Amino acid sequence: MTDVSRVGTIYCLGLGPGDPDLMSVRADRLLRQARHVAFFRKAGRKGQARQIVEGMLPDGVTEFPMEYPVTTEIPFTDPEYNRILSEFYETCSTHLRALSQEGEDVVVLCEGDPFFYGSFMHLHSRLSADVPVEIVPAITGMSAAWTATNMPITWGDDVLTVLMGTLPEDDLSKRAANSDALVIMKVGRNIEKIRQALKTAGKYQDAYLIEFASMAGQTVQRLAEAEGKVTPYFSIIVVHGQGRRP
Amino acid sequence: MTDVSRVGTIYCLGLGPGDPDLMSVRADRLLRQARHVAFFRKAGRKGQARQIVEGMLPDGVTEFPMEYPVTTEIPFTDPEYNRILSEFYETCSTHLRALSQEGEDVVVLCEGDPFFYGSFMHLHSRLSADVPVEIVPAITGMSAAWTATNMPITWGDDVLTVLMGTLPEDDLSKRAANSDALVIMKVGRNIEKIRQALKTAGKYQDAYLIEFASMAGQTVQRLAEAEGKVTPYFSIIVVHGQGRRP
Repeated sequence: MTDVSRVGTIYCLGLGPGDPDLMSVRADRLLRQARHVAFFRKAGRKGQARQIVEGMLPDGVTEFPMEYPVTTEIPFTDPEYNRILSEFYETCSTHLRALSQEGEDVVVLCEGDPFFYGSFMHLHSRLSADVPVEIVPAITGMSAAWTATNMPITWGDDVLTVLMGTLPEDDLSKRAANSDALVIMKVGRNIEKIRQALKTAGKYQDAYLIEFASMAGQTVQRLAEAEGKVTPYFSIIVVHGQGRRP
Repeated sequence: MTDVSRVGTIYCLGLGPGDPDLMSVRADRLLRQARHVAFFRKAGRKGQARQIVEGMLPDGVTEFPMEYPVTTEIPFTDPEYNRILSEFYETCSTHLRALSQEGEDVVVLCEGDPFFYGSFMHLHSRLSADVPVEIVPAITGMSAAWTATNMPITWGDDVLTVLMGTLPEDDLSKRAANSDALVIMKVGRNIEKIRQALKTAGKYQDAYLIEFASMAGQTVQRLAEAEGKVTPYFSIIVVHGQGRRP
């Protein structure tokens, strides 16, 4: 029987946008004391979350990479997509639950802010009833993106809408037209569709494209000046609000 | 003539939601090295931003409280409101600009994330052409609020809309009905209007009210279980998205 007095905590550690200097003091401290770290990555890659903490982990830490199953070519809407991912999250959860029940604390590295479009939530929903899980919030990638533009995203009573570039063009354009400020995430191969939606909404000339916000290689451009651009999935497009400004 | 080689930088330091442990590593370091700190506050109050950093400032630091002029009873729409605030921001900017030109770095304490509905932007627009201004992004109050509910705010392709409780009820209800996930800020005396708008939108039973997110006195309640509640201006209401979850 597990000695409940020694159950470990699973820390879901928001790493923020990528610059280690923008991690929270709490995240920094938990990382430097970690005995077990887990992180998602694509098979064959080092993993973005793991890269961010390079040089910060203590000697002797045990690493547990959680490698996404390959789901390219399977549409989100196919039940097979859900089945494969669900099985993957179950396997990861089983491992983390076992570590906790052996009395080990585990730090799970999460890019951005964990509860804001994060992947950890799929483990959280499987673990939180059984073992202690603590979420450490973080600076979002979108905060780093609007900060990089050197212009406030929202003023006064501006409405901000956050959209995923994976949405249908018609949905993107209607919502873009109906908001003061906009953030569009998951850009990558959706960029041409997003361009078209912003043109329809009359927001194209006001849109900025931010790549690698807060990281080496950060770029900020007007979207209209980046025609034909190939950009990473994690690039962010923003349109600033224009609200009350005494 | 000012020696431009010694012009100081004005750091607009995002303090995050209130827990000093959630400040960024960069913000923590800049605070502990500060020679000049400036912060907004209401006349006669200590000031929330100043409270957050209590015990963190070095000996001998020079403090510059920037006290909001009293604008109670003047509606936003009255030109007098804008004139009074504009004069106030000019006065603050003049002082900060002078410090910078004397070669002094200044840390301006900003609650939350500076470019997200922050007050510093009114100084930024007046200073950034003249002197070096650097924005340090931070964890938003809304991140701390949804983390406090222990449920993810957005999943998959959920649309998130951020609304100010100061908006008209009809606007709030239409936008609430049209979004997957919702954050409503500036709650305070707008709470009954927000309740009504969420009822009209069919979202009332799913709404949570978070007071003092990440701080001493933090509370999380279903809004429907907080009938008649008197709540601070900075309370936050959230409705979680229900998107794709394998």
